[in-house]
Amino acid sequence: MAAKPSTRERILQASLELFNTQGERNITTNHIASHLGISPGNLYYHFRNKPTIVAELFTEFEGKMEVFFTLPEQAAVNLEDKARYLESLLDILWQYRFMHQGLEYLLESDPELAGRYRQFSQRSLCNTQKIYLAFAEAGILQLNAQQAETLSINVWIVLSSWMQFLTTTQGAQLSLSEQLLRRGIYQILVLEEGYVVPAYREAVTSLCNRLYVPLEDITC
Amino acid sequence: MAAKPSTRERILQASLELFNTQGERNITTNHIASHLGISPGNLYYHFRNKPTIVAELFTEFEGKMEVFFTLPEQAAVNLEDKARYLESLLDILWQYRFMHQGLEYLLESDPELAGRYRQFSQRSLCNTQKIYLAFAEAGILQLNAQQAETLSINVWIVLSSWMQFLTTTQGAQLSLSEQLLRRGIYQILVLEEGYVVPAYREAVTSLCNRLYVPLEDITC
Repeated sequence: MAAKPSTRERILQASLELFNTQGERNITTNHIASHLGISPGNLYYHFRNKPTIVAELFTEFEGKMEVFFTLPEQAAVNLEDKARYLESLLDILWQYRFMHQGLEYLLESDPELAGRYRQFSQRSLCNTQKIYLAFAEAGILQLNAQQAETLSINVWIVLSSWMQFLTTTQGAQLSLSEQLLRRGIYQILVLEEGYVVPAYREAVTSLCNRLYVPLEDITC
Repeated sequence: MAAKPSTRERILQASLELFNTQGERNITTNHIASHLGISPGNLYYHFRNKPTIVAELFTEFEGKMEVFFTLPEQAAVNLEDKARYLESLLDILWQYRFMHQGLEYLLESDPELAGRYRQFSQRSLCNTQKIYLAFAEAGILQLNAQQAETLSINVWIVLSSWMQFLTTTQGAQLSLSEQLLRRGIYQILVLEEGYVVPAYREAVTSLCNRLYVPLEDITC
């Protein structure tokens, strides 16, 4: 049997849930304490204020994301791995979705978090470039350093903005259904499609077509 | 000599400036009135509350954007037009940048605006698809309806998130310099590069290379 989560852990879990469902800016430490049925004093014993809770959740988020932004050591990466890898990234972005809802406001009010986020995104962009260049060396993609940088930026933007795109253009209060997750993976794989060498092009196109899910609301 | 702007017009201009520089959520109608040196009562005579001001600014934004999302009637579109067209779109997004700063929060607190934004983005996506399909008919791009839809979504996401990308990964309080604007156009043109027919490929690549500006902070 799993150990009962500590109060500290319960505070983090409840905060994440409340931030995700009601928006970080609408939630105070009093809401969190009241949701858990603990006193504000007990909460302050573990976290001295809300930014400390946000910072800790960011550390969790960053740790989970970085696993996927690290170049696998001499692993034979295939296309199915790639789809699963993107699925995991989108899933983590969904679990910590409050981070990218009103990201600019969140960072504006917390300069320390802004600095950490900047470093995290720069490191992720840099690692993504390395992954693409490794694919190029393995003869799967054909791109140079500048193209790898450009592609990484577009992938980063689509990945981190996919949920905002769905909420604002497809209607609010969506859950990230399996379908919409797949469509996000598709949108990102398509970005790489133009750089795939001829020998792999058919496999990539066939994978893309399997992931394609129509978005009803934007059909003309 | 241009006519002196009306009080109504001055309220809109001041609101836009304050929303852009200090964040919409940090600005009240009292801030706007005080900034203009008018009484709150005078402001309320023109706009009954802040959402009415935001709605009016959105109408302006939408009107300016839609000019560029409309298929030009039988105009011979060339690549230079395209770069200028993207520059204008990014420029309008910059002029009304408060809209896409904390967009989810803004729409969450204003269901009517959320509905208008959803329709606007769906219409823009639909018009972008039509533009790409017209390029395909003109023999400049090679893509089918599904690819045009996919490309439109990625273009929309990169276009509307470009400023957030710069603020959160390159450091806050940026002005959209000519350099960073050009880089945004480059990032979007590259999305289309894979669909350009061979006869136009060299011209597109050469245009892309002229627009490329390195982003120092993400160089590995």
